[in-house]
Amino acid sequence: MKFCSDCGARVASAIPPGDHLPRYVCEACGTVHYENPKLIVGCVPEFDGRILLCRRAIEPRLGFWTVPAGFMENGETLQEAAARESREEALAEVEIGSLLTVVHVLHANQVHVFFRARLPTPSFGPAPESLEVELVPHAEIPWSELAFPSTEFTLRRYLEDLASGSQGHHFTEFDRRTAYGARS
Amino acid sequence: MKFCSDCGARVASAIPPGDHLPRYVCEACGTVHYENPKLIVGCVPEFDGRILLCRRAIEPRLGFWTVPAGFMENGETLQEAAARESREEALAEVEIGSLLTVVHVLHANQVHVFFRARLPTPSFGPAPESLEVELVPHAEIPWSELAFPSTEFTLRRYLEDLASGSQGHHFTEFDRRTAYGARS
Repeated sequence: MKFCSDCGARVASAIPPGDHLPRYVCEACGTVHYENPKLIVGCVPEFDGRILLCRRAIEPRLGFWTVPAGFMENGETLQEAAARESREEALAEVEIGSLLTVVHVLHANQVHVFFRARLPTPSFGPAPESLEVELVPHAEIPWSELAFPSTEFTLRRYLEDLASGSQGHHFTEFDRRTAYGARS
Repeated sequence: MKFCSDCGARVASAIPPGDHLPRYVCEACGTVHYENPKLIVGCVPEFDGRILLCRRAIEPRLGFWTVPAGFMENGETLQEAAARESREEALAEVEIGSLLTVVHVLHANQVHVFFRARLPTPSFGPAPESLEVELVPHAEIPWSELAFPSTEFTLRRYLEDLASGSQGHHFTEFDRRTAYGARS
């Protein structure tokens, strides 16, 4: 951020009175511009023992596999966002189920939230954001070709929970801000 | 948003190519400025059968009671945000527990997330954002003086789960965009 979105003047980095972190503050109108983490929401759609995966047609990670997921929009719930992304990326109408994972991606200022989901009928296909969309048997998940760490974490917890007959939810974090890829 | 935060020129509302929603697009440099829901994170700190409540010293809802909560910052987890807010608003060091509620506040483009929490020692006090901070017995929660619908939803689910010996998590939504205060 270089300019104030309210008045168009230059912003400077400063700690506002009563605050404890530097913010972008407008040098003309004084508006404080806060920056906060963004929500990425997705789901693991299942049909008949297979999982709906999409091969990305866009960067980042073009050509790699994910479950349907994307930025949450204003005016929708997490569950609605997850269903919308399945529609947009895989032309699939899913039924969103229980909370599966919450992944803090600290270096990207993102929180990824994934739900279990049911694909009632095997109707799907590649939307513009996907090169291909497939129902993949559990044993054939392309682990080495997954797009993001949060995709792998989510699919692994999904299968573990299935194997143990549980439906828990799981938190984790990824942090590439340090040389060792973790905070501690 | 009236001006581009990248170049300072005017923005206009337009649907970018390949998109489906109007966004603020810069008329000079073409940058698309997305607006997404913000995360508010808090907890219900308990000590010896009492809950730590804060009376707000700031707007909105000055003078009303809440649990410690506030905007999530970049670079922290949800649990870290909840613990930080307890520190900032109630000078309390809490241990964050299980996920309690997720509240979609659709008219404000916010997602509120609350955790259970433990206050190991009864050490707390009013920080600048709070008029007073108190450990309140369950039977004395000031229901008619709570600050926000998400505060009431969270405390009610907390007490219900305590009574039933469970530790579930609960989703709900509030929507004041329509005349009837709900979408459907």
